[in-house]
Amino acid sequence: MALIVQKYGGTSVGDVERIENVANKVITNRKAGHQVVVVVSAMSGETDRLLALAQAINPDLHPRELDVLLSTGEQVTIALLSMALHKQGWDARSYTGAQVHILTDNVHNKARIRDIDGARVKKDLREGKVVVVAGFQGVDEDGNITTLGRGGSDTTAVALAAALNADECQIFTDVDGVYTADPRIEPRAKRLNAITFEEMLEMASLGSKVLQIRSVEFASKYHVPLRVLSSFKEGNGTLIGVEEEKMEDARIAGIAHHRDEAKLTILGVPDQPGVAYRILGPIAEANIEVDMIIQNISEDGSTTDFTFTVHKNDYQKSLQILETIAKDLGAERTLGDDKIVKISVVGVGMRSHAGIASTMFQALAKEGINIQMISTSEIKISVVVDEKYLELGVRTLHQAFHLDE
Amino acid sequence: MALIVQKYGGTSVGDVERIENVANKVITNRKAGHQVVVVVSAMSGETDRLLALAQAINPDLHPRELDVLLSTGEQVTIALLSMALHKQGWDARSYTGAQVHILTDNVHNKARIRDIDGARVKKDLREGKVVVVAGFQGVDEDGNITTLGRGGSDTTAVALAAALNADECQIFTDVDGVYTADPRIEPRAKRLNAITFEEMLEMASLGSKVLQIRSVEFASKYHVPLRVLSSFKEGNGTLIGVEEEKMEDARIAGIAHHRDEAKLTILGVPDQPGVAYRILGPIAEANIEVDMIIQNISEDGSTTDFTFTVHKNDYQKSLQILETIAKDLGAERTLGDDKIVKISVVGVGMRSHAGIASTMFQALAKEGINIQMISTSEIKISVVVDEKYLELGVRTLHQAFHLDE
Repeated sequence: MALIVQKYGGTSVGDVERIENVANKVITNRKAGHQVVVVVSAMSGETDRLLALAQAINPDLHPRELDVLLSTGEQVTIALLSMALHKQGWDARSYTGAQVHILTDNVHNKARIRDIDGARVKKDLREGKVVVVAGFQGVDEDGNITTLGRGGSDTTAVALAAALNADECQIFTDVDGVYTADPRIEPRAKRLNAITFEEMLEMASLGSKVLQIRSVEFASKYHVPLRVLSSFKEGNGTLIGVEEEKMEDARIAGIAHHRDEAKLTILGVPDQPGVAYRILGPIAEANIEVDMIIQNISEDGSTTDFTFTVHKNDYQKSLQILETIAKDLGAERTLGDDKIVKISVVGVGMRSHAGIASTMFQALAKEGINIQMISTSEIKISVVVDEKYLELGVRTLHQAFHLDE
Repeated sequence: MALIVQKYGGTSVGDVERIENVANKVITNRKAGHQVVVVVSAMSGETDRLLALAQAINPDLHPRELDVLLSTGEQVTIALLSMALHKQGWDARSYTGAQVHILTDNVHNKARIRDIDGARVKKDLREGKVVVVAGFQGVDEDGNITTLGRGGSDTTAVALAAALNADECQIFTDVDGVYTADPRIEPRAKRLNAITFEEMLEMASLGSKVLQIRSVEFASKYHVPLRVLSSFKEGNGTLIGVEEEKMEDARIAGIAHHRDEAKLTILGVPDQPGVAYRILGPIAEANIEVDMIIQNISEDGSTTDFTFTVHKNDYQKSLQILETIAKDLGAERTLGDDKIVKISVVGVGMRSHAGIASTMFQALAKEGINIQMISTSEIKISVVVDEKYLELGVRTLHQAFHLDE
């Protein structure tokens, strides 16, 4: 007998029939002898409907009242799912975030969970009940309703799993697992049976949007085994967990890509201490997040070239700021390019195995793909290339690392 | 400066524009220097929408989960109204029933309020905030969400007014007050400026459906002055309060009527002790409520005739039960009639003034209206007549007591 926390998103509970489908999945687990806690989102479309009502009244959304409004979405789903379970003769109890004391800070619309009191849930489970909890919401110390921001239901599920010391946290989505690459780009991409937390973090942040990154961080921190499954297709999904010994071969988890970045360069900056700060300081002050940063010494050693990437939405703003900076620093000139993509090879195997980088660069060179930037971390190598090479680059690397085998 | 609790029903908050209209009414009171607590219902149609979802899943509605579901309706409204107040620069805070500790018993779907902790509301009011509370809902001792049943928002408002020791509880509806008769029947009916709680109870239960009867009982018990007003029309409405001295003239508040009753008679019952119980016992056991009861001794003194009224919906069932009883008791026969109406004259004046009954009977006789049953209480006289006399009877009595003057 295991204790399982399952999370179903808005699409999975989008109408009465789908809610009944979720009830059936829960019952299958109960019949197998497991204890089940279910976390659900608002029915798809409901959050948008509520947002539209609020915006019709005041486009300047009031954070506290917005949380009072939006939290009703999940509350509707928990009641309906409990009713669907009752109909089939299973005892179920629904709870709002406040009712199971999902204590958060008081930052409305993007609150963070501080603590969960699992006592009430545990008591219900011991009595054989299915416990249904509203995702995405909590309550602050003063009893105000808070929400965790969109997608926060994943975090609720992981936090509950941690608080209850659950055996597994299952996230049901509309994909059936994590793939070695985006199947829309590489049709030969394969579903991974298992992946480490670190790999998942790199895959998620690099564009394989399957799970909320916060929930993966949370699961990693509290050692909660996470499983991504499809609500609509049978299958075992992908287990995200701690690294196992057998992963120690030259393991590459997959090829991730990211289309949303733009690249900015400042050329011929006099090379003095503090120059990086003088360039990135004003960018940070404008609330622009920087991803990759590269600095190279120039040939004669007196000046330097500095390149970084930002989100495409911040491209024009960043370029303007950079031009002012260039003047102040007496730099030669600035360059910018928003027609780029980032492609990454991700895997814990590269920690212990040399040669991953050279395999990567060789494969790209063979196809005539010019690398504009390179950035590495312990478990990933990313390159920036012209956006026209996105599909070719992903497929080339997928094949080079034999991910389709 | 007064402390006012205002309640707006579903029609008054039925769309964004109407919610803004409510905000304007609240602001008018704040500008006049009053402290305002607003109680709102779900937007009209919302409760039915949620009920339909629940019924699609399981027509056998689960009481606890139904409360979790339906209570979201008011929660949406409190958030939207608070947003509308913020938009105009007024500080407002919304609260669910649970958040302001509207403690109820645990009878889901028709819970009764036990206690309200007004401390949080009072603190907000002192800080100049408008407090917006979800009507119709509360929380039991174990933290489960409860609802008071349809129309329970009136009760929430009155209970809050009592807990806060408010100066007035204003119920906004789609009528602009309590009338001397139903204006659809007697076009010359007039709005009453004031009426006593007792009169209101008689008027409401007799068919002038303006307020939930429970909320009037509650207001009477805790001496909360109640005012009925229109959400859509300007005016002072009708104040429902304790009896004032100037009411001591031969005051008749109005003419009420009730179409929903049916009459049953058992004739020639041997007159023995306990006969009333042997007739009404089986009726009560079948969960049928009895309104009027009349027993007359027969001419020879050996048998008695027994007549009572029930709701029209219970007529056929009651008739069947009565026929069995008639056999058991050796009664002569049974009679039934569901083509009747009850018309009542209501007013505290009749306590101290003789002649009300004779004025009433004389006026009806003059129009040739035959009285089938008579029943009296301290402040009302009711007669049952053939349903064809409804309009004529109401108008005749309205005129006989000079209510149009």
